[in-house]
Amino acid sequence: MSQRFVVIMAGGRGERFWPQSREASPKHLLPIVGDTSMLAQTVDRVTGLVPKENIFVITNQSQLEGCRKACTGLPPANIVAEPIGRDTAAAAGLAMLLVKERSANGVMAMLPADHVIHDTTEYQKLLAVAFESAESADVLVTLGIKPTEPATGFGYIQQSGLWKKFGGRDVMTVKRFVEKPDQATAQSYVESGEYFWNAGMFVWRVPVVEAAFKAHAAELYAGLAKLETASKSAGGWAPALAEVYPTLKKISVDYALMEKSTNVVVVPATFDWDDVGAWPAIAKHFKQDDAGNVLRGIAMVEGGSNNIVVSADGHLTAIVGASDLVVVHTPEATLVCPKDKAQDIKALLERLKKDPERKKFL
Amino acid sequence: MSQRFVVIMAGGRGERFWPQSREASPKHLLPIVGDTSMLAQTVDRVTGLVPKENIFVITNQSQLEGCRKACTGLPPANIVAEPIGRDTAAAAGLAMLLVKERSANGVMAMLPADHVIHDTTEYQKLLAVAFESAESADVLVTLGIKPTEPATGFGYIQQSGLWKKFGGRDVMTVKRFVEKPDQATAQSYVESGEYFWNAGMFVWRVPVVEAAFKAHAAELYAGLAKLETASKSAGGWAPALAEVYPTLKKISVDYALMEKSTNVVVVPATFDWDDVGAWPAIAKHFKQDDAGNVLRGIAMVEGGSNNIVVSADGHLTAIVGASDLVVVHTPEATLVCPKDKAQDIKALLERLKKDPERKKFL
Repeated sequence: MSQRFVVIMAGGRGERFWPQSREASPKHLLPIVGDTSMLAQTVDRVTGLVPKENIFVITNQSQLEGCRKACTGLPPANIVAEPIGRDTAAAAGLAMLLVKERSANGVMAMLPADHVIHDTTEYQKLLAVAFESAESADVLVTLGIKPTEPATGFGYIQQSGLWKKFGGRDVMTVKRFVEKPDQATAQSYVESGEYFWNAGMFVWRVPVVEAAFKAHAAELYAGLAKLETASKSAGGWAPALAEVYPTLKKISVDYALMEKSTNVVVVPATFDWDDVGAWPAIAKHFKQDDAGNVLRGIAMVEGGSNNIVVSADGHLTAIVGASDLVVVHTPEATLVCPKDKAQDIKALLERLKKDPERKKFL
Repeated sequence: MSQRFVVIMAGGRGERFWPQSREASPKHLLPIVGDTSMLAQTVDRVTGLVPKENIFVITNQSQLEGCRKACTGLPPANIVAEPIGRDTAAAAGLAMLLVKERSANGVMAMLPADHVIHDTTEYQKLLAVAFESAESADVLVTLGIKPTEPATGFGYIQQSGLWKKFGGRDVMTVKRFVEKPDQATAQSYVESGEYFWNAGMFVWRVPVVEAAFKAHAAELYAGLAKLETASKSAGGWAPALAEVYPTLKKISVDYALMEKSTNVVVVPATFDWDDVGAWPAIAKHFKQDDAGNVLRGIAMVEGGSNNIVVSADGHLTAIVGASDLVVVHTPEATLVCPKDKAQDIKALLERLKKDPERKKFL
């Protein structure tokens, strides 16, 4: 059996959780749902599945300190910072090299740091199925989420029939990976019953993914080879990353590898899953009052309903006579936004980025 | 000519400006409109009309310190605190006694501390007309505001024809004072052209108002006599107020005196006037952006319109995709409220009063 690894991808911002998410305190370092950070919950969720020393976290410089604090159970050297973001294919390449250094035929799960999954038992069972799949053949394994609605914010995975069974669970062959669809296309995907959401969870062996890079992303593959060589020099990873990483081609793992590979299989996820993409999504994870309000911290709603109010630091945040609002207070900034406009927070953040006096609020 | 005085009534809370207005920082101590406190603006507005030493401020214990700070140009002894609120008739009685101590036939204007009036020249001219009216006969003078809408939040004054002219300005006899009407009644008042809003601005000579107390509010009159006697004892006003004031009958000046007196005249106000009763009312006093938003402090609106945002202390308050909201941030509390629900802030404050842990936010 190959040695098993987990690499948690923790380099995002989670901008849509502004103002609670900030540059140095992104979504995965916050207890958006639950009492510990999303990253700590992700580490807890794979504990027992692989040894602690086989869990890596890939983050960025500004979050490195926070990630180390959130993952005190992991060896500090396993928390690795990209010197600059180069999209998910480069991050997958770095993950591959980190694992390869420890085990040339290692099998690794790449998992996002900021999803909510409560059913850990089922989750570990399905990850074990994915590991077994990747160990049994030269395949790129992904976990697919059964769509509950025609969402346009995810890529989709079309399955094309049973491939194998492990532990009584089906693993399906994959016909194709598709980009985020429009509403009508998403509707047809959901109705067909053949599609899963692509939640960015992948499992593969080092030689198999390396072959995929070589076959489908030659330029990036060359860069990764350079990075691997540099990492073996006296200075180790830090100077190698600083020198080579910024030169890597910026491309997503879906586009670079998954859409082009023909040896992809999908494990249909049978655990609960929520990517909690924006503030309105937290409502279902918390107790609501009789009027459907979710109140965290010192928050009050008078004569309104279905509001989400998050406040902290002894500050009272009160909504009077308003409905369907998200209101988030932090010591530095306050956001007020109708639930159905939560996607527009990005436009505000774009304005902040361009404002020399106010970009400190990012 | 009688000696002239101004007594500014500064004991209110302005609850509807919560959370900026707090128990120790009520509306009149805040720069709700303009750069200085409403009280300081009120003092400035009568400066030149009467000597500084003839300007009194009646407030309460918790606001005494703040009022003295806001009125550094006045003799500190002229800022007098009620030990406990006993409604406006008792406050008018106290005002009368303070003036009487200085001038037995003094003529005094009683003015609210928290109104916005920009046209100071016209305002002083009309107050002079009111002073002359009160000096010319045994009348209770009031200033009446020409209604711009059938407001149900004010009492009304019905005039019954020309009484006299001073400086070319009409002064009208008053048929009656009426309480806050319902919508239909208010509509008929406005259409008749005979009514003014009662803005709580009164001018009278000491003996005339004292006679009115004696004739129409005997119980309160007896209490005021006791207060006057006590104030002449060795300790002066402070112990006299502490002992007698809490025993005074609680009744409004409109109900105790104005509705019962037959010697009332009204000076139609020809200056601009706004009582700025709640947050939505501030909009017309500030520059609005192209989308009709009023932004004070570090405030941003993205994709919304007609919002009022007040923020301070280096804190960013951002509204994304919402319209017609009032959002007010202070270091201790944040309020979010649709403009048309601004009256409901009181319900929130009632809840706070009953909450031992949260009443500190009042």
